[in-house]
Amino acid sequence: MKLIRHGASGDEKPGLVDAKGGLRDLSGTLRDIAGPGLSRESLDRLARIDPESLPLLPPGTRLGPCVGGTRNFVAIGLNFADHAAETGAAIPAEPIIFNKAPSCIVGPNDTVILPKASAKTDWEVELAVVIGARASYVHANEALRYVAGVCICNDLSEREFQMERGGTWTKGKGCPTFGPLGPWLVTLDEIPDLKNLSMSLDLNGQRMQTGSTATMIFDVAQLVAYVSHFMMLEPGDVITTGTPPGVGLGMKPPRFLKSDDEMVLRIDGLGEQRQRVVAFDDWTAKVAAGEPTN
Amino acid sequence: MKLIRHGASGDEKPGLVDAKGGLRDLSGTLRDIAGPGLSRESLDRLARIDPESLPLLPPGTRLGPCVGGTRNFVAIGLNFADHAAETGAAIPAEPIIFNKAPSCIVGPNDTVILPKASAKTDWEVELAVVIGARASYVHANEALRYVAGVCICNDLSEREFQMERGGTWTKGKGCPTFGPLGPWLVTLDEIPDLKNLSMSLDLNGQRMQTGSTATMIFDVAQLVAYVSHFMMLEPGDVITTGTPPGVGLGMKPPRFLKSDDEMVLRIDGLGEQRQRVVAFDDWTAKVAAGEPTN
Repeated sequence: MKLIRHGASGDEKPGLVDAKGGLRDLSGTLRDIAGPGLSRESLDRLARIDPESLPLLPPGTRLGPCVGGTRNFVAIGLNFADHAAETGAAIPAEPIIFNKAPSCIVGPNDTVILPKASAKTDWEVELAVVIGARASYVHANEALRYVAGVCICNDLSEREFQMERGGTWTKGKGCPTFGPLGPWLVTLDEIPDLKNLSMSLDLNGQRMQTGSTATMIFDVAQLVAYVSHFMMLEPGDVITTGTPPGVGLGMKPPRFLKSDDEMVLRIDGLGEQRQRVVAFDDWTAKVAAGEPTN
Repeated sequence: MKLIRHGASGDEKPGLVDAKGGLRDLSGTLRDIAGPGLSRESLDRLARIDPESLPLLPPGTRLGPCVGGTRNFVAIGLNFADHAAETGAAIPAEPIIFNKAPSCIVGPNDTVILPKASAKTDWEVELAVVIGARASYVHANEALRYVAGVCICNDLSEREFQMERGGTWTKGKGCPTFGPLGPWLVTLDEIPDLKNLSMSLDLNGQRMQTGSTATMIFDVAQLVAYVSHFMMLEPGDVITTGTPPGVGLGMKPPRFLKSDDEMVLRIDGLGEQRQRVVAFDDWTAKVAAGEPTN
């Protein structure tokens, strides 16, 4: 299944994508793609529904983040050997864990706002894992049972905040709009091979990142198991699993996002994200003038 | 006001402490000490209720964490000059931010479980701030308006996971039961001076930590403002503001928690936490035998 959340920001309703790509409303059936709605029982129940029996959503429907109620938004650093190399970092001996603030989560096509006083905001296409059941001290060989599905994440990162302001990476990873998730939460039965998914990110039509989950240092099952030994994972929690090469920080000279840039992110079978970038001051000016901000 | 949450873990109801120290039930008035229940309007409404008119809770009522629905559990590192010194770290030029997993939050007197394979679990008495209104890019001189109240936090920390396993501090800060919050969420009108609160932690009756918020490097208002420049804070989010000297890691030789240890944490005007420690294997044995675990 390809699950979606649709409607106004903060008031999203559940839905799914039918065989022809039409968006269908699930709000008569399910409260939200969140918490208990992500359990195996809930997903099995949804799978038995004929999508054609559900109301079709109108064209232009906004997509929200494909999971709601996320409390713990965990991210894995330097999980692609070639990305570690481009940033000049050593290949980690065990996964590097950091956090993105849950308040940074937005829809897949929402505007990305550069933070106030930001000069170094960067892109990162990633495969994100959505937890479906409470997971604590689980083994890698059973870890996928705790996964509701996967989606695209743009792990936006302000490199100065992340690396030049002291302390951990947290400061540069959770700014508002720094966590687009979606368009679809795709259940694992639709993924032929989690370890062989092509990934890409285009900036203004130019290919910046090209990669595959085949070159991940730690795979999805290993990461879920590993994180669950340090903290209890709960339904709706998200682990975004690291980015392949091609980020702006790795370019010579480095290149960062600016107003009116457009990013397009793709992962095999998980659809596409498309985000317009706006600088903080331009965004506040648009809001003040009553212009559309998305 | 001194607000509480009472009842079974995961199903807590709101309450408050009356002038005589009695616990009163607010569940007929308020859904939870969480989200919109933390707004200024909600707190003003509660302040107009005569506590004597509320049902008295029976003795032995369990206290849950004094705030519910926390999504972002932010912590500040090395925020007391003398604690920085005891750990051998430099005094930070700006606040160090890291995250505790929200799933680690427990009640003030709940059992603290040492993680599986842990040998270096440490205590940290801290003043925690509970956010009452959405805060983004706020100034220090208005930051306290976004605060619903304060409480005690034990920022439990596994030092090997935190510092010897690669990456950020996240791994050693969010293990299950590593975030006791409470007993009371105390509104700021009850605090004569946030910058002059005595803090202490006793281990098995022996004083280990003695401190005062007077020696914090960055004060509460500065921290709320600072964090809000990197991430949007939402109602129910918690910022725990760093620990004074006297942690186990700073002792020569270092001393860490073991089964049957008892911690008592106190901060002026915020009450007292009391936690029994149990090793993971002892705890699972108790659960298997059907013995009380708290």
